[in-house]
Amino acid sequence: MRLAEQSRVWTAALLVIGDEILSGRTQDKNVAQVALWLNEQGIRLAEVRVVPDDTRRIADSVNALRSAYDYLFTTGGIGPTHDDITVDAMAEAFGVPVVEHPAARRILEDYYRDRPGGLTDARLRMARVPEGAELIPNPTSGAPGVKMGNVYIMAGVPNIAASMLQALSGKLEGGRPVVSVTVGARAAESDVADLLRETEAANPGVAIGSYPFFKEGRYGANFVIRSEDGDLARRTGDELASKLREAGYEPVEGGI
Amino acid sequence: MRLAEQSRVWTAALLVIGDEILSGRTQDKNVAQVALWLNEQGIRLAEVRVVPDDTRRIADSVNALRSAYDYLFTTGGIGPTHDDITVDAMAEAFGVPVVEHPAARRILEDYYRDRPGGLTDARLRMARVPEGAELIPNPTSGAPGVKMGNVYIMAGVPNIAASMLQALSGKLEGGRPVVSVTVGARAAESDVADLLRETEAANPGVAIGSYPFFKEGRYGANFVIRSEDGDLARRTGDELASKLREAGYEPVEGGI
Repeated sequence: MRLAEQSRVWTAALLVIGDEILSGRTQDKNVAQVALWLNEQGIRLAEVRVVPDDTRRIADSVNALRSAYDYLFTTGGIGPTHDDITVDAMAEAFGVPVVEHPAARRILEDYYRDRPGGLTDARLRMARVPEGAELIPNPTSGAPGVKMGNVYIMAGVPNIAASMLQALSGKLEGGRPVVSVTVGARAAESDVADLLRETEAANPGVAIGSYPFFKEGRYGANFVIRSEDGDLARRTGDELASKLREAGYEPVEGGI
Repeated sequence: MRLAEQSRVWTAALLVIGDEILSGRTQDKNVAQVALWLNEQGIRLAEVRVVPDDTRRIADSVNALRSAYDYLFTTGGIGPTHDDITVDAMAEAFGVPVVEHPAARRILEDYYRDRPGGLTDARLRMARVPEGAELIPNPTSGAPGVKMGNVYIMAGVPNIAASMLQALSGKLEGGRPVVSVTVGARAAESDVADLLRETEAANPGVAIGSYPFFKEGRYGANFVIRSEDGDLARRTGDELASKLREAGYEPVEGGI
């Protein structure tokens, strides 16, 4: 048995909390950045859900996802305004009260000391956590994220979420990162469907995805070979490239 | 009781199918476009899930979502390659066999008649549907989408999904579209948190969201007032703008 098959696969879900995503007003940017960061940690993003700003819906999703996967990340709903209800929903999900975290209060006191308006009641809301929670540092804008069991509660603003992820880098237990190799070609994917299926079948341990596009007036597709075994992914990429070449398509390493 | 409270709310879920979204390789664009289109139809997007190319996971999500909401839309996994398994998963979810749809075959025969390669076996896969399904026209690239019960199965490539949505416009039963009014200000949202909460409480039937940003070196926020009652949304927007002005912030209609 190959190592890639023996190693444990670590999984995570992401819960995106926010009416603004479901209304189409805001284009989500957290799914892709959390996915890429998780892969660096050797953790696979296995499911995403987007739910509205509704305590019951958030709490139910948290409980479904935190038990189904090794980790759950959430983005959104931890700011100072009335529509920021993630901490309350999380407390409900865990069946604990909401308390003020002393270290979070100190962080906010420091952060707002010399800022206009100072530490208002609204801003102090951001020191509220479910009882028993730890903090996730926020180097960007003061108010910390929250870790509760295997749940990591982060801001929805993408650059703040990114800085919280950065603070967590290397701190979570994970497996081997998945390695991707992309081979592109000016081929209709339907013309090379057999070739793709055969190449995948001949290389157990890889998954090959086919992603068609239409660019500069011509059709083409990128074929993405993914595996926890980097050598295997690269060998399979080479094999696919030479098969494409034999079939009359000029392959482009790294994709088009 | 106001009309907005009496009218039935129609809901939909979106299931995004694709390893490429969960790996972070591809930035999803379907959530926002489906959300905006649904709103025009008077249907509210109430949940999104993203799952990998895995038959069991797709089928389970389909069954959970199609029973929880009025409509379910799916994107991805209906192309000609081995990783396109949405139709098979859908058939499993409904407990029916996969069959070739005669009209879909005719569409593909016409579409590929004068195209290089013709109608290959791989391309013919795109005529497969769960037994009992109807077709959704695809003016962009031939291969149709599939309607099965209250489930609308669409392509993952955003411009193809868009053309399938266009073909469905005005055909689904819905309620009143939600009207959004945006008021922006160069205000820290934490400074106006009370003002927002009070304005929302004073106008039953509206929801006010607060979306902070950092632009051109300064903080600000857009406040989005949403309601099925357009007049109420606009009145509340005016009220919020004048309250912001009184508090010393210059409001920007339409947002910043």
